[in-house]
This record gives sequence, C-alpha cells and structure tokens, in this order.
Amino acid sequence: MDDLFEEPSTTREEILQATHRALAEHGYADLTIKRIGDELEKSPSLVYHHYADKDDLVLSCLEAMLDRFEAQVSDDVVDPRKDLEQFLDLSFASDSSPDSRRFVTTLVELRSQACHDDGYRRHFTRSDRVFESYLATLLRAGIDQGTFRECDPDRVATTIFTTLVGAMVRRSTTEDATWLEDVRPELQTYLETRVYR
Amino acid sequence: MDDLFEEPSTTREEILQATHRALAEHGYADLTIKRIGDELEKSPSLVYHHYADKDDLVLSCLEAMLDRFEAQVSDDVVDPRKDLEQFLDLSFASDSSPDSRRFVTTLVELRSQACHDDGYRRHFTRSDRVFESYLATLLRAGIDQGTFRECDPDRVATTIFTTLVGAMVRRSTTEDATWLEDVRPELQTYLETRVYR
Repeated sequence: MDDLFEEPSTTREEILQATHRALAEHGYADLTIKRIGDELEKSPSLVYHHYADKDDLVLSCLEAMLDRFEAQVSDDVVDPRKDLEQFLDLSFASDSSPDSRRFVTTLVELRSQACHDDGYRRHFTRSDRVFESYLATLLRAGIDQGTFRECDPDRVATTIFTTLVGAMVRRSTTEDATWLEDVRPELQTYLETRVYR
Repeated sequence: MDDLFEEPSTTREEILQATHRALAEHGYADLTIKRIGDELEKSPSLVYHHYADKDDLVLSCLEAMLDRFEAQVSDDVVDPRKDLEQFLDLSFASDSSPDSRRFVTTLVELRSQACHDDGYRRHFTRSDRVFESYLATLLRAGIDQGTFRECDPDRVATTIFTTLVGAMVRRSTTEDATWLEDVRPELQTYLETRVYR
C-alpha cells in the first residue's frame, strides 16, 4: 500500500503517516493513540498534543488521503477514457494486496460511523463530492473532445460512483465476491452504450 | 412501518416483533434486551430464555424479515416491468417515513458489523443472494415473455442490486441526498437501453 506522504515533513505528517499504516494493518477498532506513539517511538502525549482524540486523528488521516487524491488529479484531461477505465479497474481490483483490502474494509467501517457521527458524516459528504466531481470532469472532457456521447456528466458520474460504493461495501461485508466479477463487465456495457462513441 | 408479523403466534415471534419495532425507533446501539422485555411487559430473563444475546436477537430479526420477503415474492411473475419498477421506487423512495429512513440507517450500521463478525457476514451474504435472485427472476420472466431484451439476468441483477446498496449506504452516511435524485433516472435510462424493449 502506498504511503500517505512521500516524505513527511512535520510531526503532524509523521503522525498521520503512522495512523494510515496502522489503519491498514490493524483496522479502526484496534487503533489506539498509544500504538501510534509506539510506532513513532514517541510518547502518546506527543500525539495528544496534536490531535484531541482517536477520531480527530482518524478523520485528519482521511482528510489527508483525500487531499492527496485531489492534488494528484489534474483538470487537464488528456485521455478521459483511459483515466475512467483506470479508476474503475483500481476500484474493482480483485488482485489487490491484503493491506489494500483490509484498508477498504476499514473505510467501510469508518463510513458506517457517519450514520451517527457528524464529523464522519461531513468527511464522507466531502469525499463523495470529490470523487463524483473527478468522474464528472472526465466525462465532460470526453464530451468536449467528441469521444464521449452527449450525456449529463453529473448524473452519470453519481451513478457510477454509487455503484462503486455498493461494490466496496458488498466486498467487505459478504462471504463471496463472485458477483463482483459480474459488476465490472456490466458497468463496461453501460459505458459502451451510454458514454463511449 | 410494517409489522414483521401480522399476528405473532409464539413468544419468539412476539419478541422479534418488539425487536423490529425497537430497531426502527431506537437503532442498534440503544437496543437492549431489557428494553425488549419492557416493551413486552415481560422480564429480560424470558428474552434470554429464547435468545442468547443481543446479536442473536438482532440476527434472528433480520432473518425473519428476509423470510417474510421470500414468502411474499412469487416465482410466477405476471408483469416483470411493473414489479421491477416498484422494487426500485421503494428502494429510492425519498418520501419514506422517518421510521423507515431510520431503519435503513440501522441496516447500514448492522451491515458494517459484517466487516468483522461472521454471523452478520453470513446473514448479509444470504440477504444479498435473495434480493439478487429476486431481480434475476424478474429479468428472466421479461426475457421469456419477450418484453425484455436478451441479456445476462444474473449480471444485470447484481449490478442493479450493487447500485441499490450503494444508494442506501450513501443516503445514510452523507449530508445531502440531492445526488440520489440523479441515480434513479439514470438507472431508468440504463434499463431502457439495456433491458426494456
């Protein structure tokens, strides 16, 4: 799994890096401020100096991941179809590493906190908008370039993203993932009839 | 919200009925065996006589709901398009009662337990299969009647159902549901180009 920062440059970034790794390795339930301190060979009080509690830390880590994603994408889309396919393939990757799969499961658990916690709710609202708007940007670029059909980019983007959220959740909460093998090609059929020229 | 049983005929059914109501009114976190006992004007020990613990009770309630759904659907499909539209409209209903919406949120929280609990994982595996197989039955009926195009019913069913799971989860975990208004019509466009003749 990728590191959150290539080169953490502040103590806060070091702490978030360790949190990111701990979430992938141990999940949310087993994450403690002490464990983060131990990993950094620092005292828990240093972590508490920067973050109020475990959820403040986890939410800051999620926000940093989202910031990283936003920084990586460019408004200047060269090959929208390639970018769209790559995003879908990454989301559906069945050959992802155990750490990546565990991290997806952790994200599903964290999202469910948003059912009753305003902080997580705000984060996932922002997060969903970022991904939807990324997909809509790709669709708009394809329409402008004439390689995609005329369609409502926001409407198509939100439908694709909703299907991806469903896939993530189902993959983490059911025993078999054979159905997953069916969703990706069907989404491809949808794109070929609805989006690609 | 509908009752789980029209007329509970055993103590176990009475307990499940009360659990179903309590889950809709108070959610999972606030559900206690004592609260169920109180609601039935019986002692908690009576509930414990029938159910080992809270999760045994909640899982039995989820299973009873699924049994009720299975008993209601018929293999003899008269109007597959009408049944399919009705199922989608119910799933996307934005005018549902507060109790129904709270219950959907409770289901999202319970599903997330399946990330780390085998009992919930088994339930949601079975539950997903029941709904997928219902949708596939409708699709197969439409193809047989000649009103639906030739398509792979299982593949289309699992894709529709994955989108519905994503919609349920997003509705319960984000601040605005404006995007929801986009998913239902886009799913309709998909059905019209891919399924309906």
